[in-house]
Amino acid sequence: MIIVMVKGATKEQIKHVEDRIAEWGYGAHPIYGTERTVIGAVGVPEADKMTYVEQLESLPYVEQVISVMRPYKFVSREYHPDGTRVDVRGVEIGGNKIAMMAGPCTVESFEQTLASAKAVAKEGALILRGGAYKPSTSPYSFQGLGEEGLKILKAVSMETGQRVITEVMDPRNVELVCQYADILQIGTRNMQNYDLLREVGRAHKPVMLKRGMWAKIEEWLQAAEYIMLGGCTDLMLCERGIRTFETATRNTLDLSAVPMVKQLSHLPVIVDPSQGTGRWSLVDAMSKAAVACGADGLLIEVHPDPEKALKDGAQSLTIPNFKKLMEELRPIAKAIGREL
Amino acid sequence: MIIVMVKGATKEQIKHVEDRIAEWGYGAHPIYGTERTVIGAVGVPEADKMTYVEQLESLPYVEQVISVMRPYKFVSREYHPDGTRVDVRGVEIGGNKIAMMAGPCTVESFEQTLASAKAVAKEGALILRGGAYKPSTSPYSFQGLGEEGLKILKAVSMETGQRVITEVMDPRNVELVCQYADILQIGTRNMQNYDLLREVGRAHKPVMLKRGMWAKIEEWLQAAEYIMLGGCTDLMLCERGIRTFETATRNTLDLSAVPMVKQLSHLPVIVDPSQGTGRWSLVDAMSKAAVACGADGLLIEVHPDPEKALKDGAQSLTIPNFKKLMEELRPIAKAIGREL
Amino acid sequence: MIIVMVKGATKEQIKHVEDRIAEWGYGAHPIYGTERTVIGAVGVPEADKMTYVEQLESLPYVEQVISVMRPYKFVSREYHPDGTRVDVRGVEIGGNKIAMMAGPCTVESFEQTLASAKAVAKEGALILRGGAYKPSTSPYSFQGLGEEGLKILKAVSMETGQRVITEVMDPRNVELVCQYADILQIGTRNMQNYDLLREVGRAHKPVMLKRGMWAKIEEWLQAAEYIMLGGCTDLMLCERGIRTFETATRNTLDLSAVPMVKQLSHLPVIVDPSQGTGRWSLVDAMSKAAVACGADGLLIEVHPDPEKALKDGAQSLTIPNFKKLMEELRPIAKAIGREL
Amino acid sequence: MIIVMVKGATKEQIKHVEDRIAEWGYGAHPIYGTERTVIGAVGVPEADKMTYVEQLESLPYVEQVISVMRPYKFVSREYHPDGTRVDVRGVEIGGNKIAMMAGPCTVESFEQTLASAKAVAKEGALILRGGAYKPSTSPYSFQGLGEEGLKILKAVSMETGQRVITEVMDPRNVELVCQYADILQIGTRNMQNYDLLREVGRAHKPVMLKRGMWAKIEEWLQAAEYIMLGGCTDLMLCERGIRTFETATRNTLDLSAVPMVKQLSHLPVIVDPSQGTGRWSLVDAMSKAAVACGADGLLIEVHPDPEKALKDGAQSLTIPNFKKLMEELRPIAKAIGREL
Repeated sequence: MIIVMVKGATKEQIKHVEDRIAEWGYGAHPIYGTERTVIGAVGVPEADKMTYVEQLESLPYVEQVISVMRPYKFVSREYHPDGTRVDVRGVEIGGNKIAMMAGPCTVESFEQTLASAKAVAKEGALILRGGAYKPSTSPYSFQGLGEEGLKILKAVSMETGQRVITEVMDPRNVELVCQYADILQIGTRNMQNYDLLREVGRAHKPVMLKRGMWAKIEEWLQAAEYIMLGGCTDLMLCERGIRTFETATRNTLDLSAVPMVKQLSHLPVIVDPSQGTGRWSLVDAMSKAAVACGADGLLIEVHPDPEKALKDGAQSLTIPNFKKLMEELRPIAKAIGREL
Repeated sequence: MIIVMVKGATKEQIKHVEDRIAEWGYGAHPIYGTERTVIGAVGVPEADKMTYVEQLESLPYVEQVISVMRPYKFVSREYHPDGTRVDVRGVEIGGNKIAMMAGPCTVESFEQTLASAKAVAKEGALILRGGAYKPSTSPYSFQGLGEEGLKILKAVSMETGQRVITEVMDPRNVELVCQYADILQIGTRNMQNYDLLREVGRAHKPVMLKRGMWAKIEEWLQAAEYIMLGGCTDLMLCERGIRTFETATRNTLDLSAVPMVKQLSHLPVIVDPSQGTGRWSLVDAMSKAAVACGADGLLIEVHPDPEKALKDGAQSLTIPNFKKLMEELRPIAKAIGREL
Repeated sequence: MIIVMVKGATKEQIKHVEDRIAEWGYGAHPIYGTERTVIGAVGVPEADKMTYVEQLESLPYVEQVISVMRPYKFVSREYHPDGTRVDVRGVEIGGNKIAMMAGPCTVESFEQTLASAKAVAKEGALILRGGAYKPSTSPYSFQGLGEEGLKILKAVSMETGQRVITEVMDPRNVELVCQYADILQIGTRNMQNYDLLREVGRAHKPVMLKRGMWAKIEEWLQAAEYIMLGGCTDLMLCERGIRTFETATRNTLDLSAVPMVKQLSHLPVIVDPSQGTGRWSLVDAMSKAAVACGADGLLIEVHPDPEKALKDGAQSLTIPNFKKLMEELRPIAKAIGREL
Repeated sequence: MIIVMVKGATKEQIKHVEDRIAEWGYGAHPIYGTERTVIGAVGVPEADKMTYVEQLESLPYVEQVISVMRPYKFVSREYHPDGTRVDVRGVEIGGNKIAMMAGPCTVESFEQTLASAKAVAKEGALILRGGAYKPSTSPYSFQGLGEEGLKILKAVSMETGQRVITEVMDPRNVELVCQYADILQIGTRNMQNYDLLREVGRAHKPVMLKRGMWAKIEEWLQAAEYIMLGGCTDLMLCERGIRTFETATRNTLDLSAVPMVKQLSHLPVIVDPSQGTGRWSLVDAMSKAAVACGADGLLIEVHPDPEKALKDGAQSLTIPNFKKLMEELRPIAKAIGREL
């Protein structure tokens, strides 16, 4: 922790800060600059840091307090230098093979889900995505089939042999969703829903945490830390676009987050170009970019007939377009020494 | 709903869109422009709109679909032309008197809470704020005292005669929090936690919905619509800053949202300059600005000794500073024909 | 300058950084933390700092370099503790009286400009605003009358006795604009047009620098430093809204920048609620808020007939609405001990 | 142009809008919805549109005016369906071959520039980048060597046989820069410096327009339209990152802008991952992503010794790292059917 005093801070004020640091049991190391005095505080544990930062910043003669430690531990690559490989009932994510998670935005019916699932499975998607509980900006939009949707996902996946990823929104539903799903997805709106994070952390299931559309990478990793502290080690992150001023795309897909997170953390990183762009015509290009910059998997919305989709028709690929995507992705994967 | 066809759309493509609209039972009104054809769809109910927008946007010959209806009803001023006055056990919010909600960020102990509460009550704050459940970016930070914190709030408020506002984060805790609190606060991170919104909407208690730090005003009002659809009519909104690129302040307090929301909705609007700026030295100026532009209340963090606060010391006012704030606010309130 | 080494940096790596600092002639003060070593560099002058920060950050074993000095000098309140009062041919800005700058967005004709000017002068606006050179997002929009517009402004101001503020966009026009204007305005798009900043800095005229819609407060003050280094001391800043994700307003007016800049700098701060919101119906409320939080002046677009305005009709006040605004502002100004 | 009337607009108000449209000589086509009336205006030319939009929005009974036309013509793919291939003295940009533009951020000396240029030329970079005029946030930072820097670039490029791209910031320098450079670069801060855009548009030289860090894609294309209206047809766009709330990277590189712009416009798109991320360790991954999603070229900062670079050391590649980048890019280019 580095405390920057205001210009002209008095000896007494500097001493007061040093005394507070000593009182907390840490070492105070002042550096007297030409204009400002800076005090290093050594030994402050993560658990107390934010409290002390805020307390010192309440003093009018403290200009700024800078924390130099990373505010997470178990998710950091410093803690776990090798990349994590998540095991989803025999399907590995984070290894050499890039994981394809594809399927409809929303489970509408058994038939629609089966049609999507079969088509994407045929092209090599080992994981079926589909929403049973749908977070909708409008209360008047379709909210998902709930448990019936989960049952459809399970039944379909038994036919296709796929693993299932689906979103859980309510801590009261975690147990129920665990009965049907192989991966619990935390959506962007719930990235800082801490009670939910704690609950999925304890669920003994692989989890995929989407980035909050407002979240800095550091905050995203802190949210992941909540989940790992619950005991979960099979954790993945998913970049799905952040909110910016641009309106041509639904979100701004921050692909630089992929290599950045790979440097900071050992967790696999998935990319969702469907949500990230909101336009099916951009999904192909952004999928290729995601693979090229190191993504461990892709989450793609595919619908047998987007013009009839109950949700997200505008960003869903048709089945032929998904087939084309897979064909175009293979040489990119190969070019970086991975496979699809 | 306005459908903009791409330049050069064929007659068949235009017809296909008209047929879809007719199929849904609505009226299709094409306008043939010099470059593009535009089709108006009349009669589409809110519940189906988003689905149809997305479906039509999946067509490659549709450039854009524009919804001209406001995506909320019960929160709109069109629906309820007079401003809502929320009744909190006899304390009115949204009337001529500006509501002061003040107290510590976090309930740390009975003594600390009582000290804050007494001081702010003395200056005229009829509502005591304080967190028992605290959403913390870091899992290593203090997470609040939980039910014990609620009990302290209740006990303190019985001494001071104040009403209590406190945050609820988990739908499983709504019932419990209702036993102790007068106003349920939904925090910024949970603005789109729909299961929680539904739960508080059914709780028969006044609710204050903070704006998500990523949320457009329209999305904020849609989240409020979720709560009103649950049956809640004693609803308030709270502007608490949005996330922007600026780092000098913790958030960017969007005061223009106050008059904007007042035009669009009948709900009272509260402003939180403590969270909104993250700096106690800006709270005074931004409180005055909030009152001047029409806020119905303020939410202010006050701590007897910010340098010892467990959370948010940097943005908490001392008791003398709160007293000074109240003195400076009174003439501003008077200048706009209201009182404090 | 604080250099944070990566966890596990070797003695040699730490020594290398210390040697670089010594080589530059500054003092190196290492602090050995429990996890990371941090090195303070004392005596680095502002002129060299950014170069050294970037050079050290190029080393893979340096995690972060933090500059603790403010990157501006002459604009800082540390340098000039008293607030600056700008003198515009006898009209003072930055003193007790709040400066009203009002008039049409664009000079369209002598008659239209005179009608606006007379009306706003009658209500107490001592400064006439109006654009002769107009920055337009679209090349097909009206670009202003150029020198003819300047002549109209001058002629009108001689009739009304007002001072004139107008924008200059091209360094080649600075001399010309100086012949007609009393205050040179730098628009938001040109905040980092350094050749223009240098040119107006040398012009011996009062200058008003608008904030870039993308600019952090610190960058804005650095841009102001460019102007002061040219010799200009009669400098004002103008908050006009920043670009965020919100679309209900044209920009997000960042009023917290007013008290924040007042703490950091001695320069007067003007607020432009017309550009800041893009909606005439919000100008009244935001003007009151701006005055309440300490703005030294307001820049308001007024048009005799907004429905016929060549530019910015949507954000222009009618003359009766401007009159009403002035009436409502006076008690607010009085409430904070100032006058209009 | 679509005019949305407020709910409850009277017949007279609707008629007034229709009359205005008729008065302008265009066709008015009302659609009477269940809640609102919407009026289509047919035939409004681009040049008048923004004026009329703003004028109608000034009416209190007009809720919103929507423009359905794209606000640019010559840059649009509708106007010029085939992709433009820019010819830079025999080097083609926008064809099958991906253009590499590499070199130092800043021209510091003949030796440093030559060392960079030779190294990048050896790896296949046909275009040398380097700054002679440097836009610096701080007035105390190095501002570039000016004309001397241009001479060095010219001399070096004659040795290596490369083409030269360099930034021009001041309209007064366009002629001078044209004597030394093959491509005029407009930097991010000057994207809406319209006098400069007009000047480079008339210069009969290839131009590369960087995206303003605050600019929507639509605004970027409008800025490009300014240049094309000057007569320039050899125009390229360059995505270099936008400003968002994320601080882990210097900017947020918006790669989805690459395929989006390719759909909207015929102009080649270059990507600058050095500025886009601000971190040399991310340049490799983001370059691969840029190529994979369709970029026509890359702009890369390379320095023989980043630890000694006068500017941007933190984001410059060393020569061995640039060599490695080229080796990794080749298979990606091949995978999408292009070459490097």
